[in-house]
Amino acid sequence: MTLRPHRIAIAPSGFKESLSAARVAEAIATGVRRVIPDADLDLIPLVDGGEGTAEALALAGGGRLVPVTATGPVGDPVASHFALLGGGTTPGPLTAVVEMAAVAGLALVPPDRRHPGATTTYGVGELIRAALDAGARRILVGCGDSGTSDGGAGALQALGARLTDRHGRELRPGGGALHELEHIDPSGLDPRLADTELLVACNPYNVLCGKRGVARVFGPQKGATPAEVELLSAGLERLAAVLTRDLAPAFAPASGATALDLRTAPGTGASGGLGAGLASVGARLLPRYDVLLDGLDLDARLARADFVITAEGALDHQTVRGKIPAEVARRAQAAGVPVLVLAGTIGPGAQDVRAVGVDAYSAILPAPMTLVEAIGRSGEFLADASERAMRIMALGTRLAPVAPLAA
Amino acid sequence: MTLRPHRIAIAPSGFKESLSAARVAEAIATGVRRVIPDADLDLIPLVDGGEGTAEALALAGGGRLVPVTATGPVGDPVASHFALLGGGTTPGPLTAVVEMAAVAGLALVPPDRRHPGATTTYGVGELIRAALDAGARRILVGCGDSGTSDGGAGALQALGARLTDRHGRELRPGGGALHELEHIDPSGLDPRLADTELLVACNPYNVLCGKRGVARVFGPQKGATPAEVELLSAGLERLAAVLTRDLAPAFAPASGATALDLRTAPGTGASGGLGAGLASVGARLLPRYDVLLDGLDLDARLARADFVITAEGALDHQTVRGKIPAEVARRAQAAGVPVLVLAGTIGPGAQDVRAVGVDAYSAILPAPMTLVEAIGRSGEFLADASERAMRIMALGTRLAPVAPLAA
Repeated sequence: MTLRPHRIAIAPSGFKESLSAARVAEAIATGVRRVIPDADLDLIPLVDGGEGTAEALALAGGGRLVPVTATGPVGDPVASHFALLGGGTTPGPLTAVVEMAAVAGLALVPPDRRHPGATTTYGVGELIRAALDAGARRILVGCGDSGTSDGGAGALQALGARLTDRHGRELRPGGGALHELEHIDPSGLDPRLADTELLVACNPYNVLCGKRGVARVFGPQKGATPAEVELLSAGLERLAAVLTRDLAPAFAPASGATALDLRTAPGTGASGGLGAGLASVGARLLPRYDVLLDGLDLDARLARADFVITAEGALDHQTVRGKIPAEVARRAQAAGVPVLVLAGTIGPGAQDVRAVGVDAYSAILPAPMTLVEAIGRSGEFLADASERAMRIMALGTRLAPVAPLAA
Repeated sequence: MTLRPHRIAIAPSGFKESLSAARVAEAIATGVRRVIPDADLDLIPLVDGGEGTAEALALAGGGRLVPVTATGPVGDPVASHFALLGGGTTPGPLTAVVEMAAVAGLALVPPDRRHPGATTTYGVGELIRAALDAGARRILVGCGDSGTSDGGAGALQALGARLTDRHGRELRPGGGALHELEHIDPSGLDPRLADTELLVACNPYNVLCGKRGVARVFGPQKGATPAEVELLSAGLERLAAVLTRDLAPAFAPASGATALDLRTAPGTGASGGLGAGLASVGARLLPRYDVLLDGLDLDARLARADFVITAEGALDHQTVRGKIPAEVARRAQAAGVPVLVLAGTIGPGAQDVRAVGVDAYSAILPAPMTLVEAIGRSGEFLADASERAMRIMALGTRLAPVAPLAA
């Protein structure tokens, strides 16, 4: 019997602090080929704006990474980078990708200095200026994996805004100082911003203020105590008010458009509120996948597959709130294509992904071990787990159909 | 479309120090039913002679456990038991099951006292005597999971044999003393042994002496240093020689049969050489599954299934050497039925099981954790992993067949 080879789309996220999306896709493909050597594999490594985004988009778009030394989240200089896409050969303005995690990510905050009241996005502003210096007039800012909660105040300072307290003194770095903010002077802002298209790729679930505001949702995992969460929340409220009064009017949209509510608009809470800060200087906050999947032809590629394998470091209650496996599953489901997820860790709430189109998922660990060992061997484990899942699936192909159950 | 419900045989081993085979089978069934609610499940918990064997056979055979306080492997009394099967209602002699692990198992040796040169099977002899006292004249001795390496010397002492050194002194307990053995006096042996059928359920791969002798293969995992392994090996050689000279002739098989080579016959190395010791007083060493699966109608039940799920605490290079998943797979493969294994841990050499009929296997852990946590939550993890595997398999049922590949 000659069978058409299985067409499998492999569309994973990277594994944080471990493997890039491209490496994850390759590891999964390795495992698949051990079971279905003639499979027709379509590797589609995906990024969500966080760690690895600039590198992945540079690779995918024929661009290059430009190294920059900039101010890290705790104030020390870090070796960072931004990406220039297309090398000037594509029509339109030169496009840069600034990945906030590459200069203000949580991975750059030493575990003993995880005080989100003190970390700054100053380096993000520096990267934007470096991109402007390089001639970019379209700048895509990737959010995610941030180690900051300063509402983008640091980035605005680096771009030339003066943020002062009631004594007229420049505000010290970090979200912990924002409740003292009295005034913002935009006169020093980089004039090139006026003729630059600034696009922020955000998780639209993240908002600056309120009950589901960014300090409350993400503060604790960045190291904030309950008291610090309250201080940060109050500071971000204050920032929203002053941005709206002093800064946003200068960058207001053309007449007829409604000004963004910096407190609650989708994406204002992205990367500890960086979304709100940049929106106040005219950036457009866009649902990240609308921006990041641009040019990948993802829907058509998923629709062509017999099934899709996606992956994420952790599968849990946050997955359905805009993580890559949920996005892939939603699109694959629309095309009637089944989806398997491989996860480094399966946590509480993982089963919610079935409601958005995931048919099955599997953990990759072969044995009890520490997180550090699991991270160190994740490529090997991913390939082996991919192989194991393919063998279970192959066993299923020999059986009578089992109807998919309601989630 | 109305489908015939899937027939699934669930034929697992217990998970050592964690779940009985019956509990493992129930946990797997729980996970299966979450995906295929109308599945026709046949639960066949299996034992291999080790931990849980007496209880499982008592449950399966309408028997009961008889509590006995006996000498544990390090000499302290332990609360142990043997099983009486059938309650005297079945024809033939009253049958008892003596599980060596219940009185001399590794789990009864505190981790800080794992010196296999000092541990004894004395309690096994006491359990046999207790079974004789209860009227049993057919005694099945289950081997496996032992914490001893005394060649059954302790059991023989408890049954009345005198093992002495060249000064005529009774040998002290443990395999570490066997190299001093000079003489065995059988005159005090329990006379009831003469009209009792003693059957030992052994892994036939285990032999007493030589390169793959029991001290070399299992000594290290029982806690022996390389020097202790050599001492034990020498002691077991000495024991084989003296048993052959002083004891075995009194229990020789009927004329025409060849006497067992106590050094190398299959099963002589079972449970640290307990097989050899008991064989020297007339016990028959039998491949364990021939004995333990008796009455289960296993082959027919596996053959009726659409597929088989089996399980084991650890899947590794030892699995193919006579562990339950390998036995189940061998039988299922003969009937052309596919086999899935769920494993607590996947270790080096696990892939060897594909050569004996395993189509696919999966690990059950959802996240990095310690062995202690994994053991404590194994029932929950097993049910969840069973569910996950069924969903992957169900996904496969919607795809074109993938041919099984050569191992």
